[in-house]
Amino acid sequence: MKVVRAEIIAIGDELLYGQIVDTNSHWISQELDLMGVKVVRKTTVGDDRKDILAAFASAEARADIILITGGLGPTQDDLTKPLMAEYFDCPIVENPAAVEAVTEFFKQRGREITPLNILQGHLPTCCTYVPNEVGTAPGMWFERYGTYWMSMPGVPHEMKKLMTGFVLPKLPTLFPLPVIVHRLIKTVGIGESWLADLIRDWENALPSTIRLAYLPSLGHVKLRLTGFGQDKVEIEKDIQKQIELVLPSIEKYVYGYDSESLESAIGKLLTSNKKTVALAESCSGGYISHLITSVSGSSSYFQGAVIPYHNQFKEGILQVKHQTLDSFGAVSEETVKEMSRGVRELFKADFGLASSGIAGPNGGTDEKPVGTIWIACAGNGFVETKKLQLTQDRMLNIQLTATAVLNLLRICISEK
Amino acid sequence: MKVVRAEIIAIGDELLYGQIVDTNSHWISQELDLMGVKVVRKTTVGDDRKDILAAFASAEARADIILITGGLGPTQDDLTKPLMAEYFDCPIVENPAAVEAVTEFFKQRGREITPLNILQGHLPTCCTYVPNEVGTAPGMWFERYGTYWMSMPGVPHEMKKLMTGFVLPKLPTLFPLPVIVHRLIKTVGIGESWLADLIRDWENALPSTIRLAYLPSLGHVKLRLTGFGQDKVEIEKDIQKQIELVLPSIEKYVYGYDSESLESAIGKLLTSNKKTVALAESCSGGYISHLITSVSGSSSYFQGAVIPYHNQFKEGILQVKHQTLDSFGAVSEETVKEMSRGVRELFKADFGLASSGIAGPNGGTDEKPVGTIWIACAGNGFVETKKLQLTQDRMLNIQLTATAVLNLLRICISEK
Repeated sequence: MKVVRAEIIAIGDELLYGQIVDTNSHWISQELDLMGVKVVRKTTVGDDRKDILAAFASAEARADIILITGGLGPTQDDLTKPLMAEYFDCPIVENPAAVEAVTEFFKQRGREITPLNILQGHLPTCCTYVPNEVGTAPGMWFERYGTYWMSMPGVPHEMKKLMTGFVLPKLPTLFPLPVIVHRLIKTVGIGESWLADLIRDWENALPSTIRLAYLPSLGHVKLRLTGFGQDKVEIEKDIQKQIELVLPSIEKYVYGYDSESLESAIGKLLTSNKKTVALAESCSGGYISHLITSVSGSSSYFQGAVIPYHNQFKEGILQVKHQTLDSFGAVSEETVKEMSRGVRELFKADFGLASSGIAGPNGGTDEKPVGTIWIACAGNGFVETKKLQLTQDRMLNIQLTATAVLNLLRICISEK
Repeated sequence: MKVVRAEIIAIGDELLYGQIVDTNSHWISQELDLMGVKVVRKTTVGDDRKDILAAFASAEARADIILITGGLGPTQDDLTKPLMAEYFDCPIVENPAAVEAVTEFFKQRGREITPLNILQGHLPTCCTYVPNEVGTAPGMWFERYGTYWMSMPGVPHEMKKLMTGFVLPKLPTLFPLPVIVHRLIKTVGIGESWLADLIRDWENALPSTIRLAYLPSLGHVKLRLTGFGQDKVEIEKDIQKQIELVLPSIEKYVYGYDSESLESAIGKLLTSNKKTVALAESCSGGYISHLITSVSGSSSYFQGAVIPYHNQFKEGILQVKHQTLDSFGAVSEETVKEMSRGVRELFKADFGLASSGIAGPNGGTDEKPVGTIWIACAGNGFVETKKLQLTQDRMLNIQLTATAVLNLLRICISEK
């Protein structure tokens, strides 16, 4: 089977001057890899006619499909559309469907459309118009000499919508793609090298048709199993067999599979156990509530939260005793215990979670340096607590605290 | 003055398959941009002989300096060194200084050196050896036909050390570099094309030594002014003059300059006005509190927040009237007014902010479709409200609500 070769061209001075990070190319690479399309090159060029045309020409000489992001805004420095028209040698004319879509886009938002915006509905005659449902710059699809081209806006959520709605479903109709199956086993609460030690024998005995990768991130490690073959159902069965073999060694760290996030896994656990949760977030400042409520349907198990950034509100709203704060301080096991009990009571929830710590970069002492954080989970007749000793970085401390609190809740739901 | 053109070549399969994000290219771009070296292209290629050699050849035809990262590990899939030797047509031999450095590296860490590692001290005879103080793969410097080349490991902190210790200080000795100054004007609450309409005359009258770019993102638009010349102080003065000329047209949308974020700008506004804030977040679920508390020092103006995800807590904790919820519903101007007043009272804050809406993707009705969101800001003797009609996407709605709420607070602090 011929390898399908893709290239990505990202256009924009802001990418070359280092003002924004190009997350688009990374996301596109991942999606294509999952489908068995090989990305052979990524090129970033600025808003410069000669450089853009040269990138088009050299990509066309190599690639089966070319994905272009950026340079589609309404302003004068956006060159992609005129240069694609020049490269494919066809004029730009009004595309009635595209003009109607951009007009409707503004109308629905109750905003006045400008002449510049109407021009976004004018397209090269040699492209197929691909509607952009979440923005004003249309997608453009080109075909020539056996190479396919897709031009998309650089705004990530617009590009993703065009990829998942149009490009990715189209690929299997254009190319014979190999059958590849990916599964992710998602773990939390164990580091990469400890996990590797636990599963070494299993890893060494994997068949050659299944590849394993460790993908670590903030307190989580994902194990990716990739199976290759001819028959999807067979590959899925083989992978499932391997998962069942490894699971007994790592079960207590596994919170889900594939696209499951820790917060959505917890949502399912709460729902199936008919339990609810409330939070008292001090040092995590709302971030854990944000993660929980970013899951659609969370209102059925998330009761609410309090972020008491000062001691008087820990006392007044959460009924933490004045004496507890006085004797042990806000960052202490005793205080997070009372906070978790207090918020559970206030919101009539089954579980009450609490965090209190020194997120940094200032506010540390010899006894409680920056990164000292206490967390708690209160339930019916118990409170579990844990002390974390994290980093000097405020944002990292907030994120690691969130993972630890969610994992503590996961363990409490499972074990109580 | 001739423009100095740089290209970056990142080598490694892991960059093409989307397994890791290439932060190196972004960092190198920023550093070169600050020195007035123009990055004209970034290329990412896999561990493939033909692709790497083709990237070398096309970069050499265009660039004055070529920065290469990756492909320098000790294993067989690392091709950069043998291919550079092939490309520059010279043999790889033992470099005594490099062998000594790598031997010393292992010795200092108390680790046994392997034959593979010793080979890292063997280098092409046509390169200048550049010691890597924090890793085992040396830097390699090449010069040919007026183009300079630097090959560095892909490990970010090793690459940075070689750049800051060797490449960046060397550049001004190789090229006469221009002086470049960047300023960012940061706006919120106005779209890119409306902003362009407001400042068109000013933009068209900009001197040729100052370039303008629009950088839009979620509810924000940044205007980047780039000035070129001989004298840094003169350029800064010229840019400042242009900022003063454009400011009257856009002042009410400008929240800051350069690295300022909206949440840190608000922190400064609150601090300088000696005011405090508290939040009642319903549909935004903690995200706005998270943004505010991600700023170090926010405890001096952030009093706290309540996330009352159900009506009973809007009533019980925030004193929203039962009748208000009954008559108008939770997503209504009346309810967010009472929420903002209630949370201001509860936390004894100068400003109380509130959000209530249907974040989606479910829960919409004909009268209040998904994306309908009410926000409010209560202060001493006033409540400002605003209705937002956003998207179908839950996460996007949460982020856009946060920008709108923070902007409403900014306006209230400035105007009241």
